Amino acid sequence: MIPRSHPRYQSLIKRELLVEGFEKGIVAPAGLIAHGRGETFDYLIGERSEDFAILAEKAAVAKMLMARNPVISVNGNVTALASADIVELAKLLNAKIEVNLFYRTEERVRKIVEEFLKYGVRILGDKPDARIPGLEHKRALCTTEGIYSADVVLVPLEDGDRAQALKNMGKFVITIDLNPLSRTARTAHITIVDELTRAVKNMIDFAKEINDKEAERILSHYQNKVILAQALRHINKRLEKLATDFQALQA
Amino acid sequence: MIPRSHPRYQSLIKRELLVEGFEKGIVAPAGLIAHGRGETFDYLIGERSEDFAILAEKAAVAKMLMARNPVISVNGNVTALASADIVELAKLLNAKIEVNLFYRTEERVRKIVEEFLKYGVRILGDKPDARIPGLEHKRALCTTEGIYSADVVLVPLEDGDRAQALKNMGKFVITIDLNPLSRTARTAHITIVDELTRAVKNMIDFAKEINDKEAERILSHYQNKVILAQALRHINKRLEKLATDFQALQA
Repeated sequence: MIPRSHPRYQSLIKRELLVEGFEKGIVAPAGLIAHGRGETFDYLIGERSEDFAILAEKAAVAKMLMARNPVISVNGNVTALASADIVELAKLLNAKIEVNLFYRTEERVRKIVEEFLKYGVRILGDKPDARIPGLEHKRALCTTEGIYSADVVLVPLEDGDRAQALKNMGKFVITIDLNPLSRTARTAHITIVDELTRAVKNMIDFAKEINDKEAERILSHYQNKVILAQALRHINKRLEKLATDFQALQA
Repeated sequence: MIPRSHPRYQSLIKRELLVEGFEKGIVAPAGLIAHGRGETFDYLIGERSEDFAILAEKAAVAKMLMARNPVISVNGNVTALASADIVELAKLLNAKIEVNLFYRTEERVRKIVEEFLKYGVRILGDKPDARIPGLEHKRALCTTEGIYSADVVLVPLEDGDRAQALKNMGKFVITIDLNPLSRTARTAHITIVDELTRAVKNMIDFAKEINDKEAERILSHYQNKVILAQALRHINKRLEKLATDFQALQA
């Protein structure tokens, strides 16, 4: 048991959720490594939702509220960390959920589908009938009803190639990615530089507040370039501060 | 198969070694996450051995050459990534190798011992008969012949509590850690801010070159505070450069 008083309690809880998800066969070994990469970026960000994240989360909700067929793509890590919140967000946004795995095995797909069935939700992706052009066979699989025909896709913790392929199909791509320099972060139309569970919880709050008129206003002001630049600047400043604190400690 | 031409070939190969080690039962799930954290720092460092790393590697070799009973502590990640090189380094430095696990299970200890037996080397740690004071039971286990009586310990990829406990015992602690801000990095007497496999290969080269007189000279000049400050400054500059390149790309 991790004591709640531990300074990095939230981070350690998420690490445990990932390892549990892994033991259940939901998370791939490479998913654990990817989580570690994210942990470092979150540590550098300061483990809270900064302004650049909040603005992107509002814009993402606005865009999804106005979409014709919004789809949320889920993988093993997303399922292990945030399945309950993803279900709530999907309901509020009238969005479909589709499982889409980088290391696709039918067993992992089945386990993820089962995880969502616990919330009484049927998700797409276990019977793919379409392909995302430009991707290697298994990574291309999707459904006509979901990702293939979607106008707006939320692809949290996504691979760079797939984000680009979805963009090439003309879709509006929203991602959640702690590394503002990643190819996914740079490819997406809206990049939420925030930790997944914080991001989804914030989006749930915004989905309850934002109406159509506000959604239009939010989107008319949103500039992803500016957001990414702010995120980078923030990490840089934090690192400078950490370095200064550290040198003071050593003096 | 990862093509050699891939810009991040070395990093991807190491990721594969870790996953293989995991599948063999050598690496713990938490070891995969820890590897991911290191990957981000190595990406920020630029995936090469910088001057601050080289200087620390030379000092580490010098200190171990002059030690009475130097010991190299190995865990699952170290074994998966660098067992052959650790064996070579230990021979050159006349050092013992001892297995020491954060998530200790007798099965993982046995598998790591077997991995080293492939190189004809018997390592310590499967029959612990002593304890490091101040650590919780399983994490405290060590051998009288090895870590318990060592004057100098090389503890790569080590936990902060254990690094501190070893220091409290009066030992000279050398670590290899990609995060210059980690507690381990800040606790050690010599902190090598470098990726494990690069660090060990460099240390092998230095162990072949450095004689006793040079070892003394190197150690008399070494200041770990300065090294850590340089590592932080380097990461900071790299991040600024990445941000500038990125903004130029977007312009």
